[in-house]
Amino acid sequence: MADYSEKKVGKQTVRLEKQPRIIATTSIVGPKEGRGNFRSYYDIILKDDTNGEDSFEKAESSMMYDAIADTIKKANLSESDIDYLCAGDLLNQISSSNFAARDVSIPFIGLYGACSTMSESLSIASLIMDGGFAKYAIAATSSHFSSAERQFRFPLEFGSQRVLTSQWTVTGSGAVLLALDGDFPKVTHVTIGKVKDYGIKDANNMGAAMAPAAVDTMYMHFKDTGRDPSYYDLIATGDLGKVGRDITQKLLKEYGYDLSKNYMDCGEQMYDANESNVCAGASGCGCSAVTFCGYIYKKMMKRELNRILLISTGALMSTTTSQQGESIPGIAHAVAVEF
Amino acid sequence: MADYSEKKVGKQTVRLEKQPRIIATTSIVGPKEGRGNFRSYYDIILKDDTNGEDSFEKAESSMMYDAIADTIKKANLSESDIDYLCAGDLLNQISSSNFAARDVSIPFIGLYGACSTMSESLSIASLIMDGGFAKYAIAATSSHFSSAERQFRFPLEFGSQRVLTSQWTVTGSGAVLLALDGDFPKVTHVTIGKVKDYGIKDANNMGAAMAPAAVDTMYMHFKDTGRDPSYYDLIATGDLGKVGRDITQKLLKEYGYDLSKNYMDCGEQMYDANESNVCAGASGCGCSAVTFCGYIYKKMMKRELNRILLISTGALMSTTTSQQGESIPGIAHAVAVEF
Repeated sequence: MADYSEKKVGKQTVRLEKQPRIIATTSIVGPKEGRGNFRSYYDIILKDDTNGEDSFEKAESSMMYDAIADTIKKANLSESDIDYLCAGDLLNQISSSNFAARDVSIPFIGLYGACSTMSESLSIASLIMDGGFAKYAIAATSSHFSSAERQFRFPLEFGSQRVLTSQWTVTGSGAVLLALDGDFPKVTHVTIGKVKDYGIKDANNMGAAMAPAAVDTMYMHFKDTGRDPSYYDLIATGDLGKVGRDITQKLLKEYGYDLSKNYMDCGEQMYDANESNVCAGASGCGCSAVTFCGYIYKKMMKRELNRILLISTGALMSTTTSQQGESIPGIAHAVAVEF
Repeated sequence: MADYSEKKVGKQTVRLEKQPRIIATTSIVGPKEGRGNFRSYYDIILKDDTNGEDSFEKAESSMMYDAIADTIKKANLSESDIDYLCAGDLLNQISSSNFAARDVSIPFIGLYGACSTMSESLSIASLIMDGGFAKYAIAATSSHFSSAERQFRFPLEFGSQRVLTSQWTVTGSGAVLLALDGDFPKVTHVTIGKVKDYGIKDANNMGAAMAPAAVDTMYMHFKDTGRDPSYYDLIATGDLGKVGRDITQKLLKEYGYDLSKNYMDCGEQMYDANESNVCAGASGCGCSAVTFCGYIYKKMMKRELNRILLISTGALMSTTTSQQGESIPGIAHAVAVEF
């Protein structure tokens, strides 16, 4: 039996022994994302972002349910085969996840990591699999532009003008199914991040608020594993957008890690260049979720990518803490997926 | 190395191999809880529920920080020794936990399970310890009457009248420190619950909303382990209150499990009988947290209790879903702690 020191690598990273396999994923997006750069990789592109529901919150929850159900189907499994569902989202009390979990009969671990949730849920599901507690586990998350906008910012009817550093919350959900064997991409390393806060208070500049957390987690991952960024075919942060991606790349350069060749930010790349109003790029839990479950996973399955590092990034603000004058803490978790 | 089937017991329960030890706990409560039935077991009873902060939200977060910091100190460790902090709370975007985590330099796993968070965080921390990923991990949670009341119900200034089935959110925080060895209570089994919803829509009757989840998780735990309730010296649900405790006991009786001898609900027992306004009892993440970290843990350390089962219970409602006509889903996770 492996003891503590065998799985720990360096200070903050763990190396998985069983290396859970990602045997299926599903990505569902709204119409705007469906016109974006990764459009040919999504499983489902909705024509109507209500997904047939009568509120945006119910729409978001139903998208997560669909992503989970479709992923189980793809693997020819049923709900009762799945040992754990690890999921979270942006809405107060993670209601999208709770209500999606209500409709599936799977033991449920509710998470909150803001837009870092895809790598958080994938991390927790992977640790549980690797620890010998499960045969199958699902990691999932979602976000919806319209439910997030009215919760965190302004009523949609207000039609507020957007500043250039702002980001557009992705309408989308992604689900990942882990199993113990098979010739599929494996989760090999997990680096759980610390909360970092450099004092940014501008809720319209979340890229800058999250960048220090992304930098810290990536720095720890590279240092712990002894890997250089060039080890990976692709390094993808979640939703730093143009502003946060630029800061992250510069700061890591100062630490001696060059991201210039194989690094993208899912938020920066998501939308078509002609798409209106997206400003610094995409954000939301769904951003890295649908990019990972769509573009990245499908590229891996075609062996066009063999080693990737996913670092979903979360801005841990709430309207209450912002109104009370607090700055915006950030967090980022890194998951290495390899053939 | 243990494979999947060795740690799984029955359908929904896992048996831990390393059996992480609870080497220290801290319980901090407000003045009302400090007058309650478990008053002699709390570590810190605040004279002022603001804890020196200028908002109730900041007060709650500072209580969680204090609980974490004190627990680390009790074990003669420092922050850098702790591999993971698993925490969550009731506030939107779990802001109490995020801001407490910002002030400690520990990799952070944010959770949301409403009032089930003590057994959720303890479960996740235990699985991570048992999986060989950590030497030390902390599980923590908090709630605060005044931050919860104004978020979920009414402005405090409104002075709303309380109905008899309503419960009083505990002002308190609990933190648990897990290690790999020592003569301390051990976490032996974890049963992660499913979301259950029997259609209750009354936000003032959360005991009834959560009872089905408590019943389902306990039933699965007893069935999976082959244990009868009499195996435990104490079975404690989180915050079902008088109404939910009664429903739970009756329903489990129908399933053939008799809880009449060794079962209590932390919420029902928390406050002194003469305390005003508490109606059906206490609730909140802090309820089972401070009862576990105070009364239960200290009784275990004196060997007055040797085998306990903690089932914290959560009502997964949000104001948005309630306003949209949704019912209140519930969840409960069970953790067995034994000498």
